[in-house]
Formats: sequence, C-alpha cells, structure tokens
Amino acid sequence: MEKKVCVVGAGLVGAMLATRLAQRGMQVDVYERRPDLRKANIKAGRSINLALSDRGIRALEMVGASQRMRELSIPMHGRFLHDMDGHTSIMPYGREGQYINSISRGMLNAHLLDMAEQTGGVSLHFNSPCADVDLETATITVQDPATSQWVERPYEVIFGTDGAFSVARAKMLRTDRFNYSQQYISSGYKELSMPPLPDGRWALDKNHLHIWPRKRFMLIALPNLDGSFTCTLFLPFEGEVSFEQLVADEQVLAFFGQYFGDAKEKMDNLLHEWHSNATSSLVTVKTTPWHHKDKVLLLGDAAHAIVPFYGQGMNAGFEDVRILDGFMDKYPSWGALFAAYSQQRVADGHAIADLAVNNYTEMRDLVADPHFVKKRALSVRIGELMPQRWIPLYAMVTFSHMPYSEALRLGEKQDQILEQLVRQGIDSNSEPSDIAKAVLRYL
Amino acid sequence: MEKKVCVVGAGLVGAMLATRLAQRGMQVDVYERRPDLRKANIKAGRSINLALSDRGIRALEMVGASQRMRELSIPMHGRFLHDMDGHTSIMPYGREGQYINSISRGMLNAHLLDMAEQTGGVSLHFNSPCADVDLETATITVQDPATSQWVERPYEVIFGTDGAFSVARAKMLRTDRFNYSQQYISSGYKELSMPPLPDGRWALDKNHLHIWPRKRFMLIALPNLDGSFTCTLFLPFEGEVSFEQLVADEQVLAFFGQYFGDAKEKMDNLLHEWHSNATSSLVTVKTTPWHHKDKVLLLGDAAHAIVPFYGQGMNAGFEDVRILDGFMDKYPSWGALFAAYSQQRVADGHAIADLAVNNYTEMRDLVADPHFVKKRALSVRIGELMPQRWIPLYAMVTFSHMPYSEALRLGEKQDQILEQLVRQGIDSNSEPSDIAKAVLRYL
Repeated sequence: MEKKVCVVGAGLVGAMLATRLAQRGMQVDVYERRPDLRKANIKAGRSINLALSDRGIRALEMVGASQRMRELSIPMHGRFLHDMDGHTSIMPYGREGQYINSISRGMLNAHLLDMAEQTGGVSLHFNSPCADVDLETATITVQDPATSQWVERPYEVIFGTDGAFSVARAKMLRTDRFNYSQQYISSGYKELSMPPLPDGRWALDKNHLHIWPRKRFMLIALPNLDGSFTCTLFLPFEGEVSFEQLVADEQVLAFFGQYFGDAKEKMDNLLHEWHSNATSSLVTVKTTPWHHKDKVLLLGDAAHAIVPFYGQGMNAGFEDVRILDGFMDKYPSWGALFAAYSQQRVADGHAIADLAVNNYTEMRDLVADPHFVKKRALSVRIGELMPQRWIPLYAMVTFSHMPYSEALRLGEKQDQILEQLVRQGIDSNSEPSDIAKAVLRYL
Repeated sequence: MEKKVCVVGAGLVGAMLATRLAQRGMQVDVYERRPDLRKANIKAGRSINLALSDRGIRALEMVGASQRMRELSIPMHGRFLHDMDGHTSIMPYGREGQYINSISRGMLNAHLLDMAEQTGGVSLHFNSPCADVDLETATITVQDPATSQWVERPYEVIFGTDGAFSVARAKMLRTDRFNYSQQYISSGYKELSMPPLPDGRWALDKNHLHIWPRKRFMLIALPNLDGSFTCTLFLPFEGEVSFEQLVADEQVLAFFGQYFGDAKEKMDNLLHEWHSNATSSLVTVKTTPWHHKDKVLLLGDAAHAIVPFYGQGMNAGFEDVRILDGFMDKYPSWGALFAAYSQQRVADGHAIADLAVNNYTEMRDLVADPHFVKKRALSVRIGELMPQRWIPLYAMVTFSHMPYSEALRLGEKQDQILEQLVRQGIDSNSEPSDIAKAVLRYL
C-alpha cells in the first residue's frame, strides 16, 4: 500500500481519512468540488453545527485533533424541553458526566484540512469537481481549475467520501448485484437562527440541546461559540401543518407564535431567514457492499447517508475511518481490506440509519408521550441500578463504541422488557429490589 | 394530448403502449437501442418464453392482439413436480379451466411491433440508444443510426419503458424526494434447453409448467411451440451448492445427475449451453413516484422490475398500459393523469414485487414442504367450498384483476387463517361443514 491514493471529497470524513492515510505514510490526492472553506466565505452545504459524541471523539483523538476539538466544543448535558405554554424541563442524556457536544461543522472541517496539509503527504485540490470514476482502473475524471480541462488521473485506489450524492457510488449503482436504496422521509427542514442577547450571552441555556417537540413536527436549537443558537425546524412538506401551508409572513408568524412562542421572541431574523433559507429534504441511503473489488471504497455519507435525529451522521463517518484504520493492520491487500471492512461495517451503517429514522418519531412525538417518558425514565433507572447489565439505548449509541448493529439489537430487546415492566406497574420510582427482580426475569 | 409523444424502449411494454397511444390518435416516436428483432437474428436479452395470464391477456385484448396471442400460447394447467427419485405429481393452478400460458417473448414482441406500425401513428427507430432524458423539457438525446450523431428531440411527454436499467429512471433518481431501491437476491439463473424428441414431440408433458424443487434451488421448464422446452436453473451464486462450485464439466454433470436426473437425460446440449449461456442476476426495483411532473412516466420494468417467480413481470407491465389507458379518459392533462396513475398504481408495483420474491421461497422450498402443501390444498378446497368468499392467493394474482396490493393484503389474511385451521387439525379432507364453520369464524 505504498502508491498514491485518491480521496474524493474534502468534507469532514474525507479530510480525516486523508490525514490518517498520510499519517500511515501514503501519498494522498484529495479532490473537492467546492472552494477551500478556509479561504472562501462560503455557506456550509448543510447544517451549521453538529452533535459530536464519543465515537467521533475517539476518531478525532486517533488523528491527533483532540485539543482543537475541545476548544470548538460546547458540552450539552441533556435535552432541554420546551412545551406549548413555555414550561421547560430537562432530560439528561446519560449518567453524570456524560454529554454530547455542539460543534461548528465549518471550523472542525477547516482544522482537519489544516491537519491534512501538515502531514506533508496530502495534496488538496479545491474547485475540482469529479465527473466520473472508472471502477475497474481506479481512474477519476476531474476538472483542473487552472485550465477548466477535464483530466483523467489513475490511482491505486479511490476513496469516495463525497457525501449523500456521491459520484463514485452512482457509478457502483450500475454494477451487477449492487444493492441500493434511497428513501426520503415526508418531512423537510429549514435552518434559522437565534442571535446572542445584547450583552453577547446566549439567549437560552447553552449547555443543553433545546427541543420544542410538537408530535408531527419539532424545532431544535444547538449553541454556537459566538453566543448564537442555530435552530432547525423539522416539518412535513405537505399536509395540514406543513411547509406548503407556511407561505405568507402572517402564516409564518402565527405558526411560530402558536407553537414556539418562547423561541419566536428571541428569533430576531425569523421572517428574513424563513424566506431566504432553503427548505431541504432528508434522505436515508443504504448500500451493499461499500466497495468495488480492490479499487474503490465508500465511507461516510457516501456509504450511509442518514437522517440527523440521532446526531450520529458525522460520528458514524468518523468511526468509519477509525475502524478502517484498525483493519489496515490486519489485511495486507486492498482487496482483502475492503471486503473485510465492508463485510463487517455495512450492518452497522444500516443499523444507525434505522435508529436515526426511529429517533425522529421519538424526538418530535414520544418525548411528549407519557408512556414513552415513563419507559425512558425506567430505562435510565435500571441503568443506574444495574450498570453492568443495562446500558440505555441512547447511551449505547452515543457514549459507547459497540457496533451500531449490536446497539440496535439490544435496544429492541430492552424495549420489549420495558414494555413488560410498565405493564406490570413498575416504574422508575419502584423499589430498586422490585425493579431488579423484574428485569432479571427477562435478561 | 394531440402533440407528439415519445416511448423509450420497444420491448413488450413499449410496443404495446405505443400501439395503444396511436390507437387513441397520438403520434408516437419509439426509440430502441437494439436492432429490429423481426429482422435481425438477435438473442433475446432475457428469458425466451414467459408465462402469460389473465392480466396480460386483458391488455392484449384491449389493443386487439387476441388472435395472434392465442396462436402463440401453450396452455399450462398446473405445476408438474419432479422429485429427486424421478417421481412426479401435478398441482393444478386453479379451478377447472384456469390456466396460464407459455408464450415466446420474441414472437409476441414482434407481433406487437407489427401492430404498432399498422396503426399508422407509430414511428419505430431501432439501433437508436437513448443517452439522456431532460426531465424538465421532455427532451431526449438519442443516437441517429444513419449518422451516428447524437441528436436532441423534444416531445410533449416521454414514456420510459426501457426496462430494469431505464435511462429515464436513472435521471429521476437524482431528483429531490425520489425514493428508489434495487435489491438483488442471492441466487442467479441460467437458461438451458431441452430439445424435442426425434419425432418432434415435446420431451415432457407440454401442458404444464415443470418444476424440480430442491429447497435452496430449483429447475423449471416451460414449453415452446417448436417442441422444445426452455429450462431455467435458479441457484445461489455462492455457497455449498452454487454457481461458483459448478465449473468443470464433471461437476456440472454430477450436479444435474444428482438433483435433476430425469431432466438431465433429455438435455442434450447441457454442457455446451452451461458454458456458453450467461449466468444472470435477479433484481427487484422499486420506485416512488413513477412520474416526473407532467413530462415523464415510467411503465413496466422501468418502474417495477421484479423477480420472475410469480410469472407476473410481463403481465404487470401490460396491466400498467391497460390501467393507464383507463385513466386517460378521466384526466384531461398529462400532469393530473401521471399523478393519479402513479398515486394508485405504485402500491401495486410494490406488492407484486414482494409477492414475487416470496414465491421464490415457495417454489423452490415450500412446494416440497408438507406443511405448505397441506395449507395450499386446504386453501384450494376452501375456494371450492366458498368460491364467493375465498379466492386462493395464486388465483387472485394470476386469474383476477384485483389490484396486486389488495391480493397481497388478502393473501396475508388467508395465510393467518390457514395457519389457525391447520393447527386445529383441519385439512382439505375434513368435512366440508367443519371447514366452512372454521373459516367463517375468522373471515
């Protein structure tokens, strides 16, 4: 594995992968269709901030990005729920000391690009769209920004980290026995902002992820380092309460007034942003396998684009890099490496995709559902009483490194047990011995 | 709807659709990448003969193809099962007088092309591959066979009947909120032949579909008009008994000798065909929606490629044309027509796709499974006793015109009832009054 390799896409996962490959001594060419986000004042393609948690953190530590990562992170210890009347409550994410982090996509990406360059082994090519990937020869066709000419460049292998609409994957789609699905949910999203208070402080508690759950839709807000919050409205495209119904200013204001009164007061640019910011769709992409022979491997959203409701998109992509890195010590050839990695990791990509879709229902709907709240509190309580035997699903996904597919499987088992217990009248306030006895009957 | 319309693909569904549109007074251009199969001696892209049943027949009657269709058809009244020891048994498809038909893909397609031309409204362009479909303007880019130049041709609307790897659909795949999946099953297939006996007669009973069910794999044979049978082996690609294990001549001969002894004796060209005929994969394609605005509509395999195990691929495609035709009287604009058709018919495409995959398990495995045989016989018996209340699933799919989605739903309900009855010790030999009483408890 000494020859030149190619990474298509210099987003979060591409930048981390290039860094890691160069740290392993490889020469890496990275092609990115957009300008260098460290120089150009470009809008991030998607969400402005992201939830960084343990899986992503371990991968960032692997490449040596820990310090800057911590500087950029705002810890969020739980869900800060806002009801229709403006009442609030807090639902911790895990045990004391367990939290997720709000982090700027752009600043983290910029740091990973800096790191990639500092390795000395990575050449970054911006404004260089990739038009084609020849899967049999690992040759890409890219546009040279200096001449605007399309040129072919052969490599030993190509890594496709070019996101949910990957060019490499589109090519693999046409190969025999390649399984693929893209499924959109019926809701879309729109990003809005909540500026800092006049004194520069955050308008809401900055150490929580704020949620306004409204059954068929929801608003969330994550803090930024500059004192602002980025708010995201998730709402059906069509139907009674939907994006298609919110056109005129008064409709938008009435909607926010009715459902998100306490937030609306703090969103100074609501109408302007409503009209100027895009309404975007949300897709789940599943593919099997993730590689083509010993030539091409997909990672990150290119392999498994997921909806954002578990806060795991970036974390799953970073974990791809860490797991691939671990496999590189075991497999001497690209072909064996790609096949073994795809064989193990595909099930985890499918699992986090399903978990993320399920969590949409949970966040917008079940957080406000007494039965769910009861089950969730009981699960947390069991985790406290029997920490060796019971890790709540959210914690397995967010604070552990067990395979996502294992977390999904255990989570389904836990849910069946919780249903049984609740039916028996056991809740988080029951006697610890009663809880333990009941759980052990099923575990 | 007076202007020129375009049909991409002159296969079975494209040829029927073009005929019907011209019968309605439209000017239709059809582009087909292959040569004219009526003139060139080309191999059919896929299976040589197909099972034609009631849904396909009704559509053929609609366009006026009844007489030729009957001349080309060989009725098959049931499944003719061959066990490992060469014993045989017959499982009728339905009631007396209900049968499916073996029909030549090539000859039927040729007749539909003749009919299309005879309308006077259809221009057929062969050797004219389509490289691109502009979804917003209904413009296609095709190669002119005379000049080899790629030319753009605008139309009022474009119909994509270009099969499982449709160009039009590939373009729709990149539009927002277009749901798509392609899933390959783990088995592939290979076509082989069983020539006529020296006196020209068929080597097996020609009025049945022959099946050699072997749990993980199976051989089937359908009769042709020339006295031969076309055999198809369905077998896993990989694993203990699989295509990858059958390479050398002696391996192939030993495999056929062990599992298909009575067939092998009659397959004179087995080894030659084994090596020269392709091993092909089997894919299910689902898409939602089937149209793009008022410009493009997919029909047949382009919209819903399915595996062949229910014998419904061609029938479903022909039924698409018949149902679309029915909608054309109701909807004055292309946009309303496409939306209404897609809205109703997509669920049926998904349903027949699922039914076809399920039937693979049934044909290769459950036909030889006593529990399944018992349930199936009981279902047929209930159908005889209560014909107004109970139509067996196979008959609903094959001999009725109810929506596939309805057949799937009723079939699932029937299966639950059959499970209950068998558990209670009721079978097809039970007293009619006992059967009726038990069924009515659940219906």
